[in-house]
Amino acid sequence: MTMNKQIVLASRPTAEPTVENFRLVEAAVPALEDGQVLVRHHFLSLDPYMRGRMNEGKSYAQPQPLDAVMIGGTVGEVVESKAPQFAAGDKVVGMGGWQQYSVVDASQAGMLRKVDTTHVPLSAYLGAVGMPGVTAWVGLTQIIAPKTGETVVVSAASGAVGGAVGQLAKARGCRVVGIAGGPDKCAQVIDELGFDACIDYKVHNDTKAMSKALKEACPDGIDGYFENVGGMILDAIMLRMNAFGRIAFCGMISGYNGQPIPMANPALILVSRLKLQGFIVSEHMELWPAALKELGTMVATGHLKYRESVAQGLESAPEAFLGLLKGKNFGKQLVKLA
Amino acid sequence: MTMNKQIVLASRPTAEPTVENFRLVEAAVPALEDGQVLVRHHFLSLDPYMRGRMNEGKSYAQPQPLDAVMIGGTVGEVVESKAPQFAAGDKVVGMGGWQQYSVVDASQAGMLRKVDTTHVPLSAYLGAVGMPGVTAWVGLTQIIAPKTGETVVVSAASGAVGGAVGQLAKARGCRVVGIAGGPDKCAQVIDELGFDACIDYKVHNDTKAMSKALKEACPDGIDGYFENVGGMILDAIMLRMNAFGRIAFCGMISGYNGQPIPMANPALILVSRLKLQGFIVSEHMELWPAALKELGTMVATGHLKYRESVAQGLESAPEAFLGLLKGKNFGKQLVKLA
Repeated sequence: MTMNKQIVLASRPTAEPTVENFRLVEAAVPALEDGQVLVRHHFLSLDPYMRGRMNEGKSYAQPQPLDAVMIGGTVGEVVESKAPQFAAGDKVVGMGGWQQYSVVDASQAGMLRKVDTTHVPLSAYLGAVGMPGVTAWVGLTQIIAPKTGETVVVSAASGAVGGAVGQLAKARGCRVVGIAGGPDKCAQVIDELGFDACIDYKVHNDTKAMSKALKEACPDGIDGYFENVGGMILDAIMLRMNAFGRIAFCGMISGYNGQPIPMANPALILVSRLKLQGFIVSEHMELWPAALKELGTMVATGHLKYRESVAQGLESAPEAFLGLLKGKNFGKQLVKLA
Repeated sequence: MTMNKQIVLASRPTAEPTVENFRLVEAAVPALEDGQVLVRHHFLSLDPYMRGRMNEGKSYAQPQPLDAVMIGGTVGEVVESKAPQFAAGDKVVGMGGWQQYSVVDASQAGMLRKVDTTHVPLSAYLGAVGMPGVTAWVGLTQIIAPKTGETVVVSAASGAVGGAVGQLAKARGCRVVGIAGGPDKCAQVIDELGFDACIDYKVHNDTKAMSKALKEACPDGIDGYFENVGGMILDAIMLRMNAFGRIAFCGMISGYNGQPIPMANPALILVSRLKLQGFIVSEHMELWPAALKELGTMVATGHLKYRESVAQGLESAPEAFLGLLKGKNFGKQLVKLA
């Protein structure tokens, strides 16, 4: 009998989450029924959206149930299959959750997808060629829709989504400016990811200072902004947006704990004729094939760079997740499970 | 020699504007040069956008220069013409400003437009079949783009723009809910303009009360919101927006004087995948013919109702304008000049 370590949500955070909100449990892997596949997870993806799921109340997704395995994207290998579409040895990406193994009903469309690891490493299907990469692609191409020569700014620029946004925008002939925390991340954003500039929000830590830094980094103003954080950075950005600028709202990590953070001057939406639009990548499944094609080609040919922060073992997932929320990761945060 | 009374901007307001910010002057009407037309104004239009022009600093338009005639839309009659396109007696709409007469260079495209008053009263070309009507049409059809059965809310519902928004939305099969100040305006919005419901913001005067009133008036949530005011009404609306809702930012009258008014919870843009978009009707000239055609037909056939508040004489314009900013007008605010 194969034992399966799992992490469940033990309690909901009242403000900042802690490791106490999670609990490690162990359960036997059940015998497969017809149409089912057993996947051994190699990597678990940790993503900011999981923080929202830990809360009760209105969000774009159902709250994560208490005492159930935490939701999460996984890549792994089929170890046993009672479904004709999959065979042992297949590399697959799915939503296996925070556990070592998952049993998947292969007949449910979209639950499990075979991937080719000839030119793209397996872990990249959780990052640059996975949900974060597609998130970048959808927000950039569908909402910001930048023209050659325009200036695009992205916050959380060293993260999995932000890094892809910037490189996709560079590929479209834009000036690309990142915002990230600390000199190391800013250096990586410029030197490794090829952004034109990067602003350290820990140095420029209020609206006025950030706005001034943006003015220097964006001499022609800002045409598109990929929003990952909210708060004072958004306020500073709005002051620098050009007429007809577009802001894609992908995440607002600064508002996850407790009170909502206001937008200082919404009248700028009118004054600068801005478009602000929120989106959830899972609601645009029709765009995934085109996005994955571009992202996969760019990774395979070395035109889309990314970093991974890899925590070792399922037990390390809660700590790594809390670090992600504080920006401690460098690029895509993964947990190695096998 | 014909004398021309004019009102110029005497000084910029430091907070709320007063009549002291304006000055009445008189000047002789100059002799016409070739290509010019002399128009005697019958009506001057007073509009909230003029408040923004009185300020210095960044807005979507140049500030109104000091000691120059206040900008403004006018309808009138050609009294003398040295341009082949116009003849004495022609009824025209233009941007003649706060004065009794204007001399217009007829060769400049769009400066002066002949109108037909057979089925549409002259003054309506400043309201329902003019800039306010087209503003309503553009925001509703291009940004909110409502589907039959959806719920559309509009603030300043008894105003020239708001009233047209609601009736255009009703014509598209929507449930239409207005927001207006006081029982008289609310009754008119329902009884004369045909809205399904109207909420009195003087009764429901904070975010919580307004949100509760909206819940009752919009049992299926809100799909589109035409924003004319900003502040707590916007906050309350955002709490009730359905997923994929659209908000057209046309005006934010509550933020004209002094400090910007924040948006309480911009994370709702993401949570509810909203689109918020600002627009200025003068930047969409290509849409005016289609808009004016629908609006003109609706007025001529009695399907677009509107009210006018008419102040008498140019001297009354400053007082009437200040009243408009405080919501004292009932429908389109005009000044009768001849």
